[in-house]
Amino acid sequence: MVIAVVGLGLIGGSFCKALKQYTNHTVLGVEVDELTRQNALSSGSVDRIIEPHELVGADLSIICLYPQQTIDFILDNADNFAPKSIVIDVCGVKESIQDEVYPPLKERGVTFIGAHPMAGREFSGFEYATADLFANASFVMTPHEDTPVHAVFVVSMLAEQLKFSKVVKSTPEEHDKIIAFTSQLAHIVSNAYVKSPSLELQKGFSAGSFQDLTRVARLNEYMWSSLFTLNKSALLFELDTIIEKLGEYKEALEKDDIDTLRHLLKEGRILKEKSLIE
Amino acid sequence: MVIAVVGLGLIGGSFCKALKQYTNHTVLGVEVDELTRQNALSSGSVDRIIEPHELVGADLSIICLYPQQTIDFILDNADNFAPKSIVIDVCGVKESIQDEVYPPLKERGVTFIGAHPMAGREFSGFEYATADLFANASFVMTPHEDTPVHAVFVVSMLAEQLKFSKVVKSTPEEHDKIIAFTSQLAHIVSNAYVKSPSLELQKGFSAGSFQDLTRVARLNEYMWSSLFTLNKSALLFELDTIIEKLGEYKEALEKDDIDTLRHLLKEGRILKEKSLIE
Repeated sequence: MVIAVVGLGLIGGSFCKALKQYTNHTVLGVEVDELTRQNALSSGSVDRIIEPHELVGADLSIICLYPQQTIDFILDNADNFAPKSIVIDVCGVKESIQDEVYPPLKERGVTFIGAHPMAGREFSGFEYATADLFANASFVMTPHEDTPVHAVFVVSMLAEQLKFSKVVKSTPEEHDKIIAFTSQLAHIVSNAYVKSPSLELQKGFSAGSFQDLTRVARLNEYMWSSLFTLNKSALLFELDTIIEKLGEYKEALEKDDIDTLRHLLKEGRILKEKSLIE
Repeated sequence: MVIAVVGLGLIGGSFCKALKQYTNHTVLGVEVDELTRQNALSSGSVDRIIEPHELVGADLSIICLYPQQTIDFILDNADNFAPKSIVIDVCGVKESIQDEVYPPLKERGVTFIGAHPMAGREFSGFEYATADLFANASFVMTPHEDTPVHAVFVVSMLAEQLKFSKVVKSTPEEHDKIIAFTSQLAHIVSNAYVKSPSLELQKGFSAGSFQDLTRVARLNEYMWSSLFTLNKSALLFELDTIIEKLGEYKEALEKDDIDTLRHLLKEGRILKEKSLIE
């Protein structure tokens, strides 16, 4: 197939490199930054750099832009995708993207499938892209009920070729609800954690637990603020939940109620242990 | 020296094994559980099992019990420690322990020094104890201003013999303030995190961030509830701080205020990056 990758950052660049390393597909790159275009060409990560109007030559286009940019790019270029071709995105939210781009693409005979490669790094940009970014990661896809079965097969097989460890199918709504909990909440809690004035004192004392809790505090605020606002209700539910739960521990401690405190901790321990077993 | 270890759980058992593996000190064990006594003897982790009244034969006693048990044991056995001998504890809080046990031991000519080996595992008990538990960990000690300098040297040198990567001296108050942030808060946040009803949905979607945030949710509720209540004011300060900070992200999201949200995330990212550099 001829596969176009739009946006050669960490994720798009890694798709190009993995495509060149593990498949025989022809890889076309779309990128606005001139230096990145040159790097992608000179490293052999793409076969050609093309302009958006040339996307008509692609059998499958992978849009690797920030969430709002992804929507804007697809709507602006809806007429540039070939009928019968497949378009996938890679954003960390699925419902708001699909709601915007699925209908206009369908109208033109183009199949849109939302996707979310569960991989990333704390760094962004083509220079951090690697062919192995997706090894051992889940590839979540959220096909519409109308999506042709063959198109779903094509995208699943591509994920396998690129060394994803498994393909998980979900609905956009379910995906967004789960991701609010497993990923978005983790980034906010981690980012809020380091805001204590005690941060300055922690040298020499930093235990593994502190390092674990704060690793993802180092995030890309442009991408994550966009993801958060596009998944507002699910994320607000998770934020309300953890604030309420933290308040329970706080109240028990204020009242010197060690039995309740121990009970709260035991509840959490058991939930964590069950989640490890299942 | 003759070194007594009181309480042969994960930490006490690891002290015994490290002492036998890396030093020539004579190791005496005090333990109530008969099976653990036998295991400690048969594995060669101690030279002898003794009763508390025989602690008079030890030059240095390491009390490896839960916080409140540590206080109770030292007060009950204050007359069993030899004058001029050194007693250290290993609890994760220091001020409340030192306040209770320093004066009565000093009165008897016994030198108490609070210590906190910054090492542990999610499991407890002698069967998980290893000679290498302390390798690459910090040994924090909180000597009193009256503590004889030679006793501080002895404990520092022992920490080096047991392969601790560094010895950090602090005051009990400073230790407790920092540990409330780097360790205690991490355990409560992690334990509260898994209480969302979304936990049940997370299979197949669990990103590294979720695993990081929830690793220490699996805690020993007896030990941690005791540590928390003995460090109430410092821990309440940290809980109030993170609840307030989480509320800021929540408010920005509720108002669709993406500029504030991005600013809050940027603040956290920069604080985390600075803490990595320093």
